[in-house]
Amino acid sequence: MLKTLRDAPADAETINHALLVRAGYVRRSAAGIWSWLPLGKQVLDNVARVVREEMDAIGGQEVLLPALLPKEPYEVTGRYEEYGDLLFRLKDRKGADYVLGPTHEEIFTQLVQDQCTSYKDLPVTLYQIQTKYRDEARPRAGILRGREFTMKDSYSFDATDEGLAESYRLHREAYIKIFTRLGLDYRIVSAVSGAMGGSASEEFLAPAPAGEDTFADCPACGYAANTEAVSFALTPVEGAAHPGIEELDTPDTPTIETLADHLKVPASATLKNLLVTIDGEIAAVGVPGDREVDLGKLSEALAPAEVELVTAEHFAQRPDLVRGYVGPQGMAGKAFRYLADPRVAPGTSWITGANKAGAHARNVVAGRDFEVDQYLDVVVVEPGDPCPNCGAGLNLDRAIEIGHIFQLGRKYADAFGLEVLGREGKPVRVTMGSYGVGVSRAVAALAEQTADEQGLCWPREIAPADVHVVAAGKAVQTELALSIADRLGAAGVRVLADDRAGVSPGVKFTDAELIGVPTILIVGRGAAEGRVELKDRRTGEREDLTVDEAIARLTEQLG
Amino acid sequence: MLKTLRDAPADAETINHALLVRAGYVRRSAAGIWSWLPLGKQVLDNVARVVREEMDAIGGQEVLLPALLPKEPYEVTGRYEEYGDLLFRLKDRKGADYVLGPTHEEIFTQLVQDQCTSYKDLPVTLYQIQTKYRDEARPRAGILRGREFTMKDSYSFDATDEGLAESYRLHREAYIKIFTRLGLDYRIVSAVSGAMGGSASEEFLAPAPAGEDTFADCPACGYAANTEAVSFALTPVEGAAHPGIEELDTPDTPTIETLADHLKVPASATLKNLLVTIDGEIAAVGVPGDREVDLGKLSEALAPAEVELVTAEHFAQRPDLVRGYVGPQGMAGKAFRYLADPRVAPGTSWITGANKAGAHARNVVAGRDFEVDQYLDVVVVEPGDPCPNCGAGLNLDRAIEIGHIFQLGRKYADAFGLEVLGREGKPVRVTMGSYGVGVSRAVAALAEQTADEQGLCWPREIAPADVHVVAAGKAVQTELALSIADRLGAAGVRVLADDRAGVSPGVKFTDAELIGVPTILIVGRGAAEGRVELKDRRTGEREDLTVDEAIARLTEQLG
Repeated sequence: MLKTLRDAPADAETINHALLVRAGYVRRSAAGIWSWLPLGKQVLDNVARVVREEMDAIGGQEVLLPALLPKEPYEVTGRYEEYGDLLFRLKDRKGADYVLGPTHEEIFTQLVQDQCTSYKDLPVTLYQIQTKYRDEARPRAGILRGREFTMKDSYSFDATDEGLAESYRLHREAYIKIFTRLGLDYRIVSAVSGAMGGSASEEFLAPAPAGEDTFADCPACGYAANTEAVSFALTPVEGAAHPGIEELDTPDTPTIETLADHLKVPASATLKNLLVTIDGEIAAVGVPGDREVDLGKLSEALAPAEVELVTAEHFAQRPDLVRGYVGPQGMAGKAFRYLADPRVAPGTSWITGANKAGAHARNVVAGRDFEVDQYLDVVVVEPGDPCPNCGAGLNLDRAIEIGHIFQLGRKYADAFGLEVLGREGKPVRVTMGSYGVGVSRAVAALAEQTADEQGLCWPREIAPADVHVVAAGKAVQTELALSIADRLGAAGVRVLADDRAGVSPGVKFTDAELIGVPTILIVGRGAAEGRVELKDRRTGEREDLTVDEAIARLTEQLG
Repeated sequence: MLKTLRDAPADAETINHALLVRAGYVRRSAAGIWSWLPLGKQVLDNVARVVREEMDAIGGQEVLLPALLPKEPYEVTGRYEEYGDLLFRLKDRKGADYVLGPTHEEIFTQLVQDQCTSYKDLPVTLYQIQTKYRDEARPRAGILRGREFTMKDSYSFDATDEGLAESYRLHREAYIKIFTRLGLDYRIVSAVSGAMGGSASEEFLAPAPAGEDTFADCPACGYAANTEAVSFALTPVEGAAHPGIEELDTPDTPTIETLADHLKVPASATLKNLLVTIDGEIAAVGVPGDREVDLGKLSEALAPAEVELVTAEHFAQRPDLVRGYVGPQGMAGKAFRYLADPRVAPGTSWITGANKAGAHARNVVAGRDFEVDQYLDVVVVEPGDPCPNCGAGLNLDRAIEIGHIFQLGRKYADAFGLEVLGREGKPVRVTMGSYGVGVSRAVAALAEQTADEQGLCWPREIAPADVHVVAAGKAVQTELALSIADRLGAAGVRVLADDRAGVSPGVKFTDAELIGVPTILIVGRGAAEGRVELKDRRTGEREDLTVDEAIARLTEQLG
């Protein structure tokens, strides 16, 4: 069923989406729900095979858990609620509640609780390559962010912290092998652990413009991190002699833009105070006027507390908070809790609101005129921000998250009371890691990274076939092509044969480029003399050979 | 994670359930929802591999379609309603309706509609090995009838009836190879096509007491059929001179049992008239008094009409119908439509109700005293019933349905308007087959058929390993066992090594029998002299060999 489309689907946003659909690898069944056609299934299986081999090599044991799961285990950990709309929920005929598994920490914890009783049963690493479900608000970018997708998820169980560190290290090494074998260009970046708890977490990112993640990397020292994990060092400024606070008449300047304009100062000289509520209590977040607060980062940093922006109602109830003219001087720690970016370090001086309408204050010095209750890295990272490691200016790049490794620690073991008998004869709480590879997403990442202007261009290990045999169209050529395909197949070479009748040679050649099998064998004009052409899909190099030479060459290389 | 249980789970109803759970192959996650543990996953993968190889051999192309599907295609064919409670239904975050795919005829029809435009694109056979969902009312018998299960489903698409017949034949041959390779004892039986339409359908049944299907087979001629497909020939009785109808006073005999008792005649001499409604209209079904009407068969035979038993209300509205004393004479075709079993052939004489309370009639002759509107095979088949082929007495046996092949015809193509350009340049309606193998169910069937008193006993091709290496327990033995396992593994032999410390040799040996790997290599007393024992799990034969002899033997046989 070799079928290619002339045009990219109208809604294709990314290379992987456009090419994989055009070349007949995948077909959209619903928003974020995809069918894998024969070529796509081969590629998906090849990625899964590499993942499986490397997981087996570190002693992972493959299992297959259900995707349809009772809700109760997810209630134990609170994730039934936390997942919100991301979780597909359903009822069975008896009205019992089920979910479609988004990730299986709970179920693996229960499984190990059932199977392991002693530290001698540990460490154990279990994995599965399974269909996962997440009801994404905006499924997009082809198979990059689907609502049904294939993932390898594994879980390590150890009796000690050192054991977890070792399991984590093994996974890290396995992931390096996996992504290297897949031929992906990738970076390992630090990630934040967030509300999940746990002590270490890294992401494997495949740089690609279509990526949904942004990461920062340092051209000087090689530091790389998810932007959410980039921190800014708190460096108090000492010894500077600042003049006293001076109040400025600044009518109609409720925004940083109008203020900077009015005073003819850069926005970075001003202090922006964002008012929020934290579990209902009013707080202010101070950041330089030219920076944006990342509300996601702020929520993450303060979780499980609830963070919300203040509303007109809050201002109505608090006449001491003058909208557009708030400053921390005389207010921090009294009128509100004051959080600030590390750039608002002790000893820095700012222009900020004077806490009366139409007025600002200058020479407002952190540590002298106001105290910061808590420093937090919550501004949006920007290109050129200093590297936390060496201070050089960071680059920001888009990437696809293809793997994530995570030291969970005891969060799930605590929730379920997972213990084994320890070496000293006492119960020991088990510590866990969880590790994911986006198997279907890796296919998209590979398509993104390896495609060229002609189409897809797979690394050999992942390609749906080794050789794509194309017959120019006459009967003699088609017959020869099929006999070559048979001989190659019998020798163990994976062959895709294009024997379509009624399709012009030009279309077939263009389709072969589009489909992206590494070697194209063309049965064309020379067929009558028993000559064929071998073409390297990536380099475009062509070679004219006799049929026997071509078969011998390919069999030796690939059989 | 080698873990076995001493006892079968309390709710184990079948061998497969008890042994697979005890031996650590599967674990129950919820009613009818199972986790496949490492050993079980190997067996499941082995079955899937055999299925895949034989499907590829007949030109099947593997795809992977979603399990989460929009409801619309199932509405087009009416199956969204027809499936009733069997279908898992859910809504996404936007409130759109989805189902978890129970079987994918609709989606494959749409896929082919999208991909194939000409008869030259056909025939095409697509298959997937996929997780399927059915919300069974009574999930039971371990993995035999699950609510989440693994199935190979394939679909053939042909432009002509002859093409469909050939695709069906290819599948039949492939299934024979699959089940033979799996080492299953199976029978191919005729099945009814039912309301699905279509012209031919056969089931592959694995005889087993735990089976949920009953099939009839003839010891004389080899005929075999699902009991629902067994027919009884209608043979009019000619030439018999029956006396005229005689009314009998039979007080308090509203049931066949009381009537036969009262008259001292066998129940088979009486005619039972079951009153039902067919789409609301009252009808009677006449069968010999010793036979039961199979309401499922009756519904199936009359579908899509709705069949229900009559209620007291119906009797209240129809005083001509005397409950317990209904007879067809003078009523059939007037008071009710009269359906009958072929045993109520023209010329047969019966004792039946006289249509008045406390009275029956004898010498009521079919064709003389009443007419049958429609003959239907709707009685429950019983052992000894005549073979439709040769007339010998049939046996009835329990079996597990492991495969089903089905000529669907144009039902789905009609629903979606699936046409291709035909050879004559005109659009041709495509004809389809659908074919299923219960992959997880085949594991259960294998467990049922091959287990012995010691436990599971897998055929080599399906076993989770070739060799189970068991060390008796001392350090020298464990060390030798692990080195043997390594050497065998390096030679390509699939090894399961039991290196559990603190487990007695006796328990290990018992567990090895329970787990059922075909060859057990015991590192016991002879270890110090470099001698081991090879044991054949099925026959129990043991052989004492040097380590090198044992490794050479196994490598030669299995590597």
